Amino acid sequence: MNEGSLLARSEFVARLRALEARYWDSHPFHRRLHSGELTKQDVQLWAANRWYYQRCIPLKDAAILAACPAAEIRRAWLARIVYHDGADTGEGGAQRWLRLAEAVGLSREEVLDERHLLPGVRFAVDAYVTFARTRPWLESVAAGLTELFAPGLMRQRVAAMRQHYPWIAEDGLDYFTSRIEVTPAEGSATLDLVVEHARTREQQLACVAALAFKCDVLWAILDALDYVTLDRATLAGSP
Amino acid sequence: MNEGSLLARSEFVARLRALEARYWDSHPFHRRLHSGELTKQDVQLWAANRWYYQRCIPLKDAAILAACPAAEIRRAWLARIVYHDGADTGEGGAQRWLRLAEAVGLSREEVLDERHLLPGVRFAVDAYVTFARTRPWLESVAAGLTELFAPGLMRQRVAAMRQHYPWIAEDGLDYFTSRIEVTPAEGSATLDLVVEHARTREQQLACVAALAFKCDVLWAILDALDYVTLDRATLAGSP
Repeated sequence: MNEGSLLARSEFVARLRALEARYWDSHPFHRRLHSGELTKQDVQLWAANRWYYQRCIPLKDAAILAACPAAEIRRAWLARIVYHDGADTGEGGAQRWLRLAEAVGLSREEVLDERHLLPGVRFAVDAYVTFARTRPWLESVAAGLTELFAPGLMRQRVAAMRQHYPWIAEDGLDYFTSRIEVTPAEGSATLDLVVEHARTREQQLACVAALAFKCDVLWAILDALDYVTLDRATLAGSP
Repeated sequence: MNEGSLLARSEFVARLRALEARYWDSHPFHRRLHSGELTKQDVQLWAANRWYYQRCIPLKDAAILAACPAAEIRRAWLARIVYHDGADTGEGGAQRWLRLAEAVGLSREEVLDERHLLPGVRFAVDAYVTFARTRPWLESVAAGLTELFAPGLMRQRVAAMRQHYPWIAEDGLDYFTSRIEVTPAEGSATLDLVVEHARTREQQLACVAALAFKCDVLWAILDALDYVTLDRATLAGSP
C-alpha cells in the first residue's frame, strides 16, 4: 500500500465515523445525567458550564469564516452563526440554551457572569476556539463533525430529561428538540464538504485528527463536571 | 488636563475625522486615476490589485466576528460579510468588483489567479487581515471607519471614470454606485458603535491609532501601484 495515496472516500468516512466511539455520549457524566442520577444542583452546574460552550460556538464558526478563502463556503457556513446568534434579539440557539438554564432554576445573570464556570471547562472550550483561529478552515470544519453523532444523543437526552427530571419545564428542552431537527442535515453537509476538500492523504488524516481533538474537547468538559459532582456526591454520602 | 480621562464624544469623533487628511483619496495614484492620466494597462493593474483587497474584506469582517463576544454586535456585523460575499452565487460586492475588472478588459481568470498582484499590495492587505485577527474587535471596527471618508471619493470616481475612461462599460461601475448607496449608513453605524464601546481613553486612542493604521494600509496599496505605473510611464517616455 502506498502510504502517500489518498484514502478512498469510504475509508476516509469510515475513519471519521469510527471516532463515534470517543463521542461524549458514553462519558460517565452523561450516563449519570441520562439515568437520572444527578441532583438538581448537578444539573444546574452542567447547564451553566455547557453555556460557555454554547457561547463560544459562534466565535469558533466565525473563525472558520475568517480562515476560509472561498466565498461559496463562507456563504454556507454563515448560517451556522445565524443559527446560534439568532436572526434577531432573543432568538437563536444560544438563547434557547439560556432558557434551558432558566428552566433548571438558574438566573440568567448567574449564567452570563460565568460564576459557576469550571476552569477545566473554560480551558477545553478555549482550546476549540483557538484551534479554529489557528488551523486550516478544513480541519476546523472537520472538528465539527461530532454533529454526525449528536442526533441519537439528543433524542435520548430529551426522553431522559422528561423521565428523570420532570421538574424541568418542557420549553426548557427547546434547545435539544430544535437541534434534533437540524443536526442530521448539518452533519451530512459538513461531511460532504470535508470529503470534497480533503484532497491529499495528509489533509484527510488531519481531518480525522481534528475530529479526535474535538472529541477530546467535549470529553474534557464532562471530566471537569464529573469530577466536581462526584466529589460532592461522595461528601454528601459520608457519615 | 487629566491625561487619563475619557475624551468627550465630540473630541473623540474629531480625532477620528481628522484622519481624513490621510485617506487615500489624495494619494498621487488616485489623483492620476481621476484626472484621466492612466493608461488602460494601468487601470487594469489597479483593478487586478484592488481585487485582492476586495477578496480579503470578508475575511477581515469574519475575523471581527470571531473576536467579538457580543451576539448583538455579531448579528449586525454579519451583514457586512453578506454584502461582500452575496446572499447567493454571483451576487455581492466582490462579484461587482470582478465585473469591473472584466469591464476594464481583464479576464476573470487572470484576476482570480492573482498573477498581476504586486507584493506590496499583498503585504498591505494581509497586514489589515492580520490586524483584525489579532487585535480587539473594537479596534478592527474602528479601522473600518475609512468608510466615513469614502462616499465623496466614490462619487468623484464614478464621474471621473465616465469622463476619462469612456471605454469602461457602465455596468462595470456598479461596484461604486452601490457602495455610494450603503457607505454613509455603514459609516454612521460604525462610528456609533465605536463611540459607544470605547469606554476608556486608552481604547479611544487605540481606535484612533487603528484608523490611522488603516489609512496607512490603503496608502501603501497605492504606493505600490504608483511606483510600478510611474516607472512604466517613465520608460515609455524615455528616448
